[in-house]
Amino acid sequence: MSLKETEFQLMDEEQLSVELIEAQYQLKNTSQQPNAKSVLILVSGIELAGKGEAVKQLREWVDPRYLRVKADAPIIFNQKQTFWQSYARFIPAEGQIMVMFGNWYSDLLSTAMHVSKPLDETLFDDYVENMRAYEQDLKNNHVDVIKIWFDLSWKSLQKRLDEMDPSEAHWHKLHGLDWRNKKQYDNVQRLRQRFSNDWIVIDGEDEQSRDQQFAQHILRTLKHCPEHILNTKEHWPQAPVPELLLSPATEMADEAAYKNELKKLSQKVAEALRCATRNVVIVFEGMDAAGKGGAIKRIVKKLDPREYEIHTIAAPEKYELRRPYLWRFWNKIVPEERITIFDRSWYGRVLVERVEGFASTVEWQRAYDEINRFESDLYNSQTVVIKFWLAIDKDEQAVRFKAREETAHKRFKITPDDWRNRDRWEDYLHAAADMLQRTDTEHAPWHVIATNNKHQARLQVLNMILKQLKAD
Amino acid sequence: MSLKETEFQLMDEEQLSVELIEAQYQLKNTSQQPNAKSVLILVSGIELAGKGEAVKQLREWVDPRYLRVKADAPIIFNQKQTFWQSYARFIPAEGQIMVMFGNWYSDLLSTAMHVSKPLDETLFDDYVENMRAYEQDLKNNHVDVIKIWFDLSWKSLQKRLDEMDPSEAHWHKLHGLDWRNKKQYDNVQRLRQRFSNDWIVIDGEDEQSRDQQFAQHILRTLKHCPEHILNTKEHWPQAPVPELLLSPATEMADEAAYKNELKKLSQKVAEALRCATRNVVIVFEGMDAAGKGGAIKRIVKKLDPREYEIHTIAAPEKYELRRPYLWRFWNKIVPEERITIFDRSWYGRVLVERVEGFASTVEWQRAYDEINRFESDLYNSQTVVIKFWLAIDKDEQAVRFKAREETAHKRFKITPDDWRNRDRWEDYLHAAADMLQRTDTEHAPWHVIATNNKHQARLQVLNMILKQLKAD
Repeated sequence: MSLKETEFQLMDEEQLSVELIEAQYQLKNTSQQPNAKSVLILVSGIELAGKGEAVKQLREWVDPRYLRVKADAPIIFNQKQTFWQSYARFIPAEGQIMVMFGNWYSDLLSTAMHVSKPLDETLFDDYVENMRAYEQDLKNNHVDVIKIWFDLSWKSLQKRLDEMDPSEAHWHKLHGLDWRNKKQYDNVQRLRQRFSNDWIVIDGEDEQSRDQQFAQHILRTLKHCPEHILNTKEHWPQAPVPELLLSPATEMADEAAYKNELKKLSQKVAEALRCATRNVVIVFEGMDAAGKGGAIKRIVKKLDPREYEIHTIAAPEKYELRRPYLWRFWNKIVPEERITIFDRSWYGRVLVERVEGFASTVEWQRAYDEINRFESDLYNSQTVVIKFWLAIDKDEQAVRFKAREETAHKRFKITPDDWRNRDRWEDYLHAAADMLQRTDTEHAPWHVIATNNKHQARLQVLNMILKQLKAD
Repeated sequence: MSLKETEFQLMDEEQLSVELIEAQYQLKNTSQQPNAKSVLILVSGIELAGKGEAVKQLREWVDPRYLRVKADAPIIFNQKQTFWQSYARFIPAEGQIMVMFGNWYSDLLSTAMHVSKPLDETLFDDYVENMRAYEQDLKNNHVDVIKIWFDLSWKSLQKRLDEMDPSEAHWHKLHGLDWRNKKQYDNVQRLRQRFSNDWIVIDGEDEQSRDQQFAQHILRTLKHCPEHILNTKEHWPQAPVPELLLSPATEMADEAAYKNELKKLSQKVAEALRCATRNVVIVFEGMDAAGKGGAIKRIVKKLDPREYEIHTIAAPEKYELRRPYLWRFWNKIVPEERITIFDRSWYGRVLVERVEGFASTVEWQRAYDEINRFESDLYNSQTVVIKFWLAIDKDEQAVRFKAREETAHKRFKITPDDWRNRDRWEDYLHAAADMLQRTDTEHAPWHVIATNNKHQARLQVLNMILKQLKAD
C-alpha cells in the first residue's frame, strides 16, 4: 500500500489546499446521501518522524473546523476492556474527519512494550486480526479507515534527538519509551511490522515530501466516495422456524411453589451476577408482550439499584444513524458497569429493521457477522453475554394486548404500532429463526424461553442465567 | 419542604404502584409537548438510613426500564472542575427520570470532610449558593430537581451497624467515613444543615413509611407537569448599538509588517495558551463572513494539533433539544482539554434563536443570566473565557459573499441561508448589542473587533488574547 516513489509528486501548495478544502466540503455534504462516509485516520510512528508536524501542516491546508484531532496517552490493555472501547465514542459521523494519534495500535504497541510479561506473538497477532476485522466493519458501515505510519531511521532519529529543543520535549514522552535505546527502537520496528502491511508508511526524513505525501493520501481518500451497494442477489437460505417458536409450551405452575422458587432463585442470581471478576450483559428479545419487562424485574429484584443498568432500546436517533449501526451499543457497554441489561438490543438490525425495511439487504445480512464479532470481543474482555428470546404464540399475545388495554397501569404499554406489528408475525418469526441460527455462538448462546406461562418463563430465565454463569 | 406528619398517609401498595407507572408514562409522553419535563432526583443521607432500599422499593413499584439510577463514589472537588462537570452528561432528557446517588452535594460533603484543610464555611456556602442557582437553571429548562435527604439518629445508626451483615457492608463504605465516630456523625449533620432547608428530609427509622414517603414525593413530582410559560410582557429596553458595530474601522496595514507581526504574535499566543495552571476557552461570534475561521486559524498556527479542540456550532440535534439549552456546551468543555475554541457558541440562544424565533421570549431573556452563571463557573474553575465579537459592515459582507461565490475553495462556505440572514441584519445587530451589554462581565469580558480589514483584525485578536491571559 505504500506509495511508490514514481507515483508521488509534489503539488503546488495553494492548489493542494484548495483541493483539500473542496474535498472536505464535498465529504461534509455526503451526510445522509447514498455515498455518505466519514474518514478515520489512524496515525502512529517513530518519535520525531514528524507525525505531529504533518497533521499540523494538514490542518493549515484544510478548513481546521472540519478536521478533528484526538490525542491521548496510550492505554495499556486490561482484561475487562475491548480494544475499541475507549475510542468508540470518537468514531466520526458521516461527513466528518477524525485524526487519532492515540488509537488501538498505539495501545497494542505500548502494551507489548510495557507489560512486565511481554505479549506473546500469537496474542499480538490475534489482536491485530481482531483490529482489522473491526476496521472492516467500520468501512462497511461508511467509516473509511486509513492508517499511516511515520517512519524514521535509527540514525536520523538520533540526530533529531541531538538537535531537539529541550523545551519542546513534551510530546516526545508520549510513548514513554527511551528512543536512545537501540534495542527498544528495534523492538518497536519489529512489532509494527507485524501489523503495518496494510498501512501507508511515510518516511519522515524529508519534511516537505512527508507532509505532502500525508496530505495527498488524505485528499485521495476524501475524494473517493462511491455509492454504497444496498442490495445483493446472494441466495439466502431461510432457517427453519424452531418448534418452540411456533408453540411455546403452556405448562401451569403451582402459585405457592412459584413464589417460593422465585424468591430463592432471585437471591441466587443476584449473588452470581455480583461476582467481581467479570461483567455480565443480558439481552432480551421477543415479540411484543412476551414478558421482557417482567423477566427483567425478577432479575434485578435482589440487586441494589446502584449495581445494574437497564437500557431500553427504541429507534435510533438521527445522530446515531450517521454512525455504524453498532455504535450506540459500543457506547452503552462500559467496563465499569458490572451488570447491563438490554430490553431489546443490537438484534434490532436483523429483526425490526430487516422486517420493516429500515436496513438494506446487504446491511442486515452483514450484521450477523458484525454482531458475532462484537459479542466475541465482549466475551474476550471478561464479559458473559446471556441472550434470551422470549417465545409467545399469536393468540396469547392477543390476550395480553387486550389485558393491557383494559388495565389502568398497563394501558400505556400498548400502542397502535403493537397491533400493526402483529400483521407481520410470520416475517418476524422467520427473522427470529435466521437470527437464532446465525448468532447462536459458543461464546454467546441463545436461550429460547416459552413464555405462554409467565411464571414458568421467569423461573427458566433465572435458571438459565445461573447455568450460563456457572458454566463460564 | 419536609412532609408534615399529618399530610402523610400510607397508600395501598398496589394503588401506589399503578399511579407511579401511569405517572411515568404520562411524563414520558410529555416529551416535546408544551409541558415537557424530566425529573432529577438527588439522593443523599446518613449511611444505613435506607436510601438504597427506598430507591430499590421505588424501582419495584415503577416500570424499572424508565427509571435510571446513577451511583458513583464521591469526587473530591479539584480546582479545574466545576461541580456540575462530571454529572452534566447524565442530566435526564425530557420524559426521563434519573436518580443520582452520587451528586454535587455528596461531593461537597466529601470534600468538606476529607480535604486536609477543611473548607471554610463561606466557601461551603458559596458552593451551596451556586448549586442552587444551577438547579434553578435546570428547572427553568424543564428539568425538575428534587432533593431528598435520608436521615437517621445517632442511636439508630449505631444499632443498625451492630446488626449489619458483614457481607453486605460493601455499599456502606461509599463515603469512606467512620460512622462509629460521633464527632464525624455530628459534623455531617452540621454541614448538611447548611444546605438541607430546601430538601425533603425523610426519617429512615421506619422502613415502610420511609419507602412510601419517598415514593409519594416522586409521584407528586411526576404528576406535576404544568405548561411552560413562553412569553413575558416584561418591558425590555433595547441596548444602544455600539458605534464599532455600525462602522468597523478600515485602517490598512502594511503587508510585510503584518506578516512579521503575525508570526511573532502567533508564537507568543501559543506559549501563553499552553500554560498548565489554567484552561482557556475562546469564543467567536459575529456576522457571517466576519472572519471567524481565519482568526481561529491564526490562533492555532503555532500549536500542536494535539493541544487544542475546535468546536463548530451548528443547529442543535433533536436529542440536544430535549435537554437544557446549555447542556451541549456543558459537555463540550472538559477539564482535560487545555484549549477549547468555539466557532459560534452558546450565544446562539440570544442571537440566531432569538432573531429567528427558535427560542421563546422567556427563554432568550433568561439566557443572559444562565450564560453569565455558566461562564462564572468556568472562571471559578481556573478557566479563562475570552470572547470575541467580530464586527463587519453590511457592504463588506456583500463583497466577501461574492468573493466566496467566485473562489473555488470558498464556494462551499456560502449558502442561500447566508444571503437570507442578511435581510435580518438590523435584528442581528440589535441582538448583538443586547448581548454585549448583558454578558460583558468582569470574569468574561467581550472584545469587539472591527474586521473590515482582516489583517488588522487578526492581529487585534491575538493581542487581546495575550492581554486577557496576562491580566489573569
